[in-house]
Amino acid sequence: MSFFGSRWVEVPAWVAESAEPGLPRGFRAAGAAAGLKAGGALDVGLLVADEPATTSAARFTASAAPAAPVQVTRERADLAALRAVAVNSGNANAATGRAGLDEAARVQGAAGVAARVDPAHVAVCSTGVIGVQLDGRKVIAGLLKAQEALRAGGDEDFAAAIMTTDAFEKRAALDVDLPAGRVRLTAQAKGAGMISPSFATMLCFVQTDAALEAETADLLLGVCVKRSFDRISVDGQLSTNDTVLLQCSGASGVAVAPEGEDELAFGQALDALLRQLALLIAADGEGARRVGRVVVRGGNAGGVEAVARAVADSPLVKTALHGGDPNWGRIAQAIGGALAGSAPVPFDIAIEGVQVASGGQAVRGDLEGLAALVDRPEVEYVVGLPGDGHEVELFFSDLGHGYVSVNADYTS
Amino acid sequence: MSFFGSRWVEVPAWVAESAEPGLPRGFRAAGAAAGLKAGGALDVGLLVADEPATTSAARFTASAAPAAPVQVTRERADLAALRAVAVNSGNANAATGRAGLDEAARVQGAAGVAARVDPAHVAVCSTGVIGVQLDGRKVIAGLLKAQEALRAGGDEDFAAAIMTTDAFEKRAALDVDLPAGRVRLTAQAKGAGMISPSFATMLCFVQTDAALEAETADLLLGVCVKRSFDRISVDGQLSTNDTVLLQCSGASGVAVAPEGEDELAFGQALDALLRQLALLIAADGEGARRVGRVVVRGGNAGGVEAVARAVADSPLVKTALHGGDPNWGRIAQAIGGALAGSAPVPFDIAIEGVQVASGGQAVRGDLEGLAALVDRPEVEYVVGLPGDGHEVELFFSDLGHGYVSVNADYTS
Repeated sequence: MSFFGSRWVEVPAWVAESAEPGLPRGFRAAGAAAGLKAGGALDVGLLVADEPATTSAARFTASAAPAAPVQVTRERADLAALRAVAVNSGNANAATGRAGLDEAARVQGAAGVAARVDPAHVAVCSTGVIGVQLDGRKVIAGLLKAQEALRAGGDEDFAAAIMTTDAFEKRAALDVDLPAGRVRLTAQAKGAGMISPSFATMLCFVQTDAALEAETADLLLGVCVKRSFDRISVDGQLSTNDTVLLQCSGASGVAVAPEGEDELAFGQALDALLRQLALLIAADGEGARRVGRVVVRGGNAGGVEAVARAVADSPLVKTALHGGDPNWGRIAQAIGGALAGSAPVPFDIAIEGVQVASGGQAVRGDLEGLAALVDRPEVEYVVGLPGDGHEVELFFSDLGHGYVSVNADYTS
Repeated sequence: MSFFGSRWVEVPAWVAESAEPGLPRGFRAAGAAAGLKAGGALDVGLLVADEPATTSAARFTASAAPAAPVQVTRERADLAALRAVAVNSGNANAATGRAGLDEAARVQGAAGVAARVDPAHVAVCSTGVIGVQLDGRKVIAGLLKAQEALRAGGDEDFAAAIMTTDAFEKRAALDVDLPAGRVRLTAQAKGAGMISPSFATMLCFVQTDAALEAETADLLLGVCVKRSFDRISVDGQLSTNDTVLLQCSGASGVAVAPEGEDELAFGQALDALLRQLALLIAADGEGARRVGRVVVRGGNAGGVEAVARAVADSPLVKTALHGGDPNWGRIAQAIGGALAGSAPVPFDIAIEGVQVASGGQAVRGDLEGLAALVDRPEVEYVVGLPGDGHEVELFFSDLGHGYVSVNADYTS
């Protein structure tokens, strides 16, 4: 199956899915089973960039209850020069206090030894249950196993080790033909549309053999995250552990200079990669059938964003999306709620290009014909508010029985 | 079954459920079948206060997409002297534009004639599908039928006529022994915990034969709505049609003077009535099993409110409540999300009086013992944030398969 599957992702002509598996030059990875997940599944991943000149950039959750590994990486690692990544699944190491911070720091130290790099160049990440102390010894034992298995083709095991409730793998290997030459761009991500309470987190690791200054990597990652992972709403919940890392080994010898053609071309490739990964996260999950995209336009930036969030997070809109129901009254309700307290708003609504409401009122339309349009894997809603100049988009999951089954039927 | 069933409602000693059915002196009501609902069910209600000196107070949805009847009542009725109420179910008359406003005004005029009062003393309310033009002729025909059936015992039919997806009736008749004498206090409400997209709305009509100045009625209604309907979160959605009315006929001859003992005693009775009705709305709905109460305390008013809303609206917390799952990691996640962007917050969490997290980290506790405590119809969560001086509560519904069935499985 092709990695790029969404009509909402523009794939530049110079980007191709690679026929060859494996990480870009300068990277090795592995996964190991450390006993954190049941049944001997892979649950510890190690990824190493061997080039000392490797540059990097990072983004983290904005949660006010950040997990210990997020705090440790943010405060105690050189985010511009990350060489190694140590990840565990099965335990989030969140709400674990001082002991949890110590354990994350210990894992960082051990990963440095395993990767043969200074611990200050190691990022640590966790995903899994919240509020249970992490047994760092298990993670460290897993890292030692992974160390022996490190190889360029280890991204598949690494990706498996970070998965929790994911129904399918989210991994890509791209060839990018920049004006300056061909580079490789790979990524491994996890995160399920139906984020499960004990396994909630979005993690994404991106590698390239292009040579980027750390500032360039940071700029591009920041812009692309804003257009991808910042624009998906699964269930309106913010994880304690979200982490996105970009590492650039430079091993291809192709330099991406700031403010040139190569930066633009590389940025567009990274943008397509992250947007497709974000859409896969929104699409994943028990019982998920469809992904919605809401686009809101209007003259007030705050109102435009609030309406987009309200539509994307509305359980009424999400269940309608799941059921293939074109009832746009649910969208009208979300708009009214988002702008509560203001005068009646003359909103417009279009579903899959069909205008259903204009100036705040129903447009006589063929709602039965509309039903066929919303019975698709991707459904688009466009909302117009008064004024011009601001436009935002959000991608969101539907809400079906699978969500309830995962989150209510089985106690965690 | 007793009306007062929740441990979260304090019932004053001077309030008793009345053995006698029917409205307070000075009121008559009726319901009629006008063909807006399928199957000949009651769908138009008329309530009349015969005393010319009747006072009233009203509260409406804050939605920026208010329904036509909300706009018409708010702008074209004397809210301090409402004599009649005309309600229809089966159609919300929302997102219906200029034509919808005209239709609501026509219904107001016809109800004035049917009730023998000036139309400016008529409130109109609708509940049902959004975005479909209301056939006012049907409503008016229903009002004429109802007119002939008006009687003091008509509150039962009136309550039936305003129901939509409600699984049970929400109606009360109380005797209130004020220092100045006994008065009667009755109410009819609708609203289902699992608010259905096409039938979303909370309506509540309250009558008393006590004599209150309009300013007193307005003050008491405002305070009590803030502690009841403003504190329930069903699915985080705000209806286009929410309306709460209080009418005081004065026919008992018992006056409730401002700032006296009677006002205090009457206010406490009204408070208990509205809180219990709000809890019934939260408890109602397909598949709903439990009602949660979250209490948040801390030093920052905005943060306290944001955290309470985040917990009450979190689909992860709601599914946990449904499943009887004591997993408090979902609450930690909601807190972190609500305060996103701030430094790590040392939150405390207690479930049913059992401390599970302190200073942002897990307290070693018997989570299995806790499971029995959350397997109840009412579950209480207390969150402590840094500082003192602010406390808010919110009541919320759980999220189970019934919600998905009502909202996704059947297209509307």
